[in-house]
Amino acid sequence: MNLIILTEQDRVDEHSFRLADLRAEHIRAVLNLTPGDSVEVGLLNGPIATARVESVFPGEVIITCDSWRDLPMSGPEIDLVCALPRPQTLKKVLITSAMMGVRSLHLIRANRVEKSYFQSPLIQAENRLPYLVEGLAQGKLTRLPQVEVHDRFRAFFEDDLPRFQLGSSPHPLRLVASQDTKSSLYDLFNPAFTQVVAAVGPEGGWVPFELELMQSLGFKPFTLGRWTLRVEHAVTAALSQIELMRMRP
Amino acid sequence: MNLIILTEQDRVDEHSFRLADLRAEHIRAVLNLTPGDSVEVGLLNGPIATARVESVFPGEVIITCDSWRDLPMSGPEIDLVCALPRPQTLKKVLITSAMMGVRSLHLIRANRVEKSYFQSPLIQAENRLPYLVEGLAQGKLTRLPQVEVHDRFRAFFEDDLPRFQLGSSPHPLRLVASQDTKSSLYDLFNPAFTQVVAAVGPEGGWVPFELELMQSLGFKPFTLGRWTLRVEHAVTAALSQIELMRMRP
Repeated sequence: MNLIILTEQDRVDEHSFRLADLRAEHIRAVLNLTPGDSVEVGLLNGPIATARVESVFPGEVIITCDSWRDLPMSGPEIDLVCALPRPQTLKKVLITSAMMGVRSLHLIRANRVEKSYFQSPLIQAENRLPYLVEGLAQGKLTRLPQVEVHDRFRAFFEDDLPRFQLGSSPHPLRLVASQDTKSSLYDLFNPAFTQVVAAVGPEGGWVPFELELMQSLGFKPFTLGRWTLRVEHAVTAALSQIELMRMRP
Repeated sequence: MNLIILTEQDRVDEHSFRLADLRAEHIRAVLNLTPGDSVEVGLLNGPIATARVESVFPGEVIITCDSWRDLPMSGPEIDLVCALPRPQTLKKVLITSAMMGVRSLHLIRANRVEKSYFQSPLIQAENRLPYLVEGLAQGKLTRLPQVEVHDRFRAFFEDDLPRFQLGSSPHPLRLVASQDTKSSLYDLFNPAFTQVVAAVGPEGGWVPFELELMQSLGFKPFTLGRWTLRVEHAVTAALSQIELMRMRP
């Protein structure tokens, strides 16, 4: 927990917030803070601040903050498309997506996605929230990724993708991770792109029809490297490599 | 399990191997193979092959392989230095290191490493092996990373590091992940490097003395990106970014 994420439900008055859950325990027992100490906080989908600890009791911490600042943003917005993984993997993908600042995460049906995954409790938005907030607290970010579940493959790419890309970017780059290409992000990326849509396949990969449809819509295959990665590693690897390209001078 | 890892203990005769553990179940119940099918295998620290399934019973599979081939290798060798993490994280670091092909993994003491971590069963080599083999099977690699635990920080950098680097590389690059620099791998890496030593700190980071000692020995700080990552994500991110630089045309 590198940033204490606050919500409006925690607010007591204009400047005060009351924490009565794991965050209070973190401040008291992990960070060992006492009244008068300062702690980094962020308002969910809002600015960050250095707060002042006012009182610390087991199970309850009161903090105040009066000077908020915006988180700097730069580089392309990232929209991640991920074949819906098994629930244990989905938790990791949710945490990583929030931690690494993706704008939206689209969980889609694909041929090699087991139908039972769509019955997971994580399909409900309220069950996903704790993992997203955990990721934000780790990555010191406050913007909640928009997560959508799409249970039709073709409709997602043909109808939904244009809708969420609409107007958001004059220079989108569409990418699909693949082991059947020698092209890397090094070849495909340039700093003019203001939006990146990156697609990561299921365990076992996309089937040919899926890859062909994506390519017909401008998705460029790129290799993450020599290895065969698990979904959660592929997501981290893809976001890390995009970040490195973003830092290109 | 993208590659079935074999050891000499599995060998029945010159061409035959008998599997009687999770690998047999994987072949039978996950891959659904039957006699006559082929399966990708690799000999631990050795070559790979396309094997033929000879017999399949619950709990026992016999395969034969007669034509071995070497795994292609290219690019710099990677030696990873990691402040010893908590045991649950160490398991992930072991899997990732093997999966992503590091040559050696050095787990070192640092100021912010809890002493109790050195009491973990994973400090014993035999307890680490299953995680390393799991990583190889995922990444389709066969070379076991050499894992060493070093309980003195300064002695590792001053005595052990020169020893394991000795003679191995005329062009080593020494890197330390840091949030206090704007330099990325993009600025520091070039294809002439034949060896990369990359250091990842503990939760909470290195203390100034540690960073200064590393920098005095030529370790260049580099940033993985804007975020604050957990150790397991930092390892995946660092190896992914090195791989991307390796693929630079």
